[in-house]
Amino acid sequence: MKNILPLAYFKDHIKIVDQTKLPLELKYVSCRNERDVSDAIKKMKIRGAPAIGIAGAFGLYLGIRNFKSTDKDRFIKRTVEVAEYLAESRPTAVNLSWALEELKKKVLHNYRRSIGELKDIAYKEAVHIMQDDQKRCRLMGAFGAKLIKNKDVCLTICNAGGMATSGYGTALGVFFKAKEDGRKFEVFACETRPLLQGARITSWELMQKKIKTTLICDSMAASLIKRGIIKKIFVGADRITLSGDFANKIGTYNLAVLAKFHNIPFYVVAPLSTFDKNLKSGKDIPIEFRNKDEITSLYFKKRIAPPGVRVVNPAFDVSDAKLVSAFVTEKGLIKPPYKINIRKIIHAQ
Amino acid sequence: MKNILPLAYFKDHIKIVDQTKLPLELKYVSCRNERDVSDAIKKMKIRGAPAIGIAGAFGLYLGIRNFKSTDKDRFIKRTVEVAEYLAESRPTAVNLSWALEELKKKVLHNYRRSIGELKDIAYKEAVHIMQDDQKRCRLMGAFGAKLIKNKDVCLTICNAGGMATSGYGTALGVFFKAKEDGRKFEVFACETRPLLQGARITSWELMQKKIKTTLICDSMAASLIKRGIIKKIFVGADRITLSGDFANKIGTYNLAVLAKFHNIPFYVVAPLSTFDKNLKSGKDIPIEFRNKDEITSLYFKKRIAPPGVRVVNPAFDVSDAKLVSAFVTEKGLIKPPYKINIRKIIHAQ
Repeated sequence: MKNILPLAYFKDHIKIVDQTKLPLELKYVSCRNERDVSDAIKKMKIRGAPAIGIAGAFGLYLGIRNFKSTDKDRFIKRTVEVAEYLAESRPTAVNLSWALEELKKKVLHNYRRSIGELKDIAYKEAVHIMQDDQKRCRLMGAFGAKLIKNKDVCLTICNAGGMATSGYGTALGVFFKAKEDGRKFEVFACETRPLLQGARITSWELMQKKIKTTLICDSMAASLIKRGIIKKIFVGADRITLSGDFANKIGTYNLAVLAKFHNIPFYVVAPLSTFDKNLKSGKDIPIEFRNKDEITSLYFKKRIAPPGVRVVNPAFDVSDAKLVSAFVTEKGLIKPPYKINIRKIIHAQ
Repeated sequence: MKNILPLAYFKDHIKIVDQTKLPLELKYVSCRNERDVSDAIKKMKIRGAPAIGIAGAFGLYLGIRNFKSTDKDRFIKRTVEVAEYLAESRPTAVNLSWALEELKKKVLHNYRRSIGELKDIAYKEAVHIMQDDQKRCRLMGAFGAKLIKNKDVCLTICNAGGMATSGYGTALGVFFKAKEDGRKFEVFACETRPLLQGARITSWELMQKKIKTTLICDSMAASLIKRGIIKKIFVGADRITLSGDFANKIGTYNLAVLAKFHNIPFYVVAPLSTFDKNLKSGKDIPIEFRNKDEITSLYFKKRIAPPGVRVVNPAFDVSDAKLVSAFVTEKGLIKPPYKINIRKIIHAQ
């Protein structure tokens, strides 16, 4: 099959797949400046921790591309401002601020070059961040695929696939590589309320790769694990602290508890850019709360709850390190004790 | 507020609230014979273990009401056949077959009476089953309300309220009574995918009684329990075995595990008619699997999953007795050891 990338880049704009329309429509939207990119991230037309990092990097490039003056100090100020503006689009995933920081550093580091050259450097860095993610996803896939045996039945939540990254995926990349390696296994996808990324995007990606896929409601995982049907869980991550506590799509902590309670492995697949060196534990991770309409109206269309009902809609939850069997990164597996081993691998970078 | 009953009975038909339309439309449908009733149960226009028992009893009455011949043996045969037919409408909840059995026994026991009298006996028994459920719900409410303290934040799943019973509820009846008693507490309602009885019916019932209600997606419960926000869980049941293992709406087992893992109480509220004397453990409970469209198309309207995706859609799950803090029945609380205490209370009936 043709591999559909979540983002295509050009010198004056990017085109992103509008993921809110998947899988029934494959519609692209163009972003020509930082506001377009921020809007696309906020509305989750592009989502997934690595993917919003990549989009953010291009957003920063597009935001400084049209800078007209020859005043270098103002150019630098503009670069910093656009980066700050974009970082606010979504607070939980660290990859967005990480990518913006990488690109900003590159510009500041080359301060002596001309504004034209700096714009070019920014563009190349954004392209590099995307291409680099492709390599990292392949590496994670290779390390993770070794954890999958024939006849395994795996479970995942949300979408940690091609659409969440530069095109291959973190947790789903593991499945893709295992499939490429000829392993016989199947995957259950949690639909992932409220925005149904599992139903809409993950099952679509898995089916494109001819992986046997079964869609379930999030509440069904417990019973399937209890009955011994599901053997292993693989999820992505939006931010991992130095202790190994990590944030991911709401519902992930639920699966982590179920894995521990039923004694099955629970793997977190994420590039090292997802580790936040500034955070010691899960308590420090900012959690984004989103609009109540996501819950009270089914996929923004049909209203399903009484008018005026109170809602809480945390987009993420935090799981404790002790529930994680291993982190799968582009440098290999990180196993407990996490407080020691995470620092070791991060400092070795 | 006016208490809306799920079912109104007349000599020649029943009127039921079409619960698939709640809360945005309060629409009634009439059932004039056993086929109408079976169809309403299958399509979940009426649902909830005690409520489908009551509907089934009236369905059996309506099914024999139009019997024209004077051949009593054929009348009895017809009674047995209609009961069998109705029992197949939904397999998991035991209350349906229990109510049909009660009504059938009454007819067989009065075999010597005329067919006209037997029809009348059937009608009165159906009315009795409904009125009796109202009393039992009030008793469960009274016993259960003692478990709720000021400032408690409780969680429930699906709808174990007025619409699931004769008008008051099992798990929700506990909340209603605590509210009537002036207790200050609040309730989080799991939306309950796939058919959203929590979003549509439970939050609606709770708000009508002015109970502070917050709607969440099923996957959010874990994180809210972990953060100490939710203190207690109350659920209904569709079938309880002699060991205390019980079936309830899919997602209940998930909550039972979360309660145990986080050490908060987990209560099951159900009348004694929900206990199945013939079943020793949860392994024996038949689980209904429903149509995949319930998952792939949001509430039967908007398609959200790729065409052809494989789905499993178990309507119920089974929770182990060891996860239950207590059963709340109309005869009081049943506490462990369940193998002894369930038999004790059932045999004392």
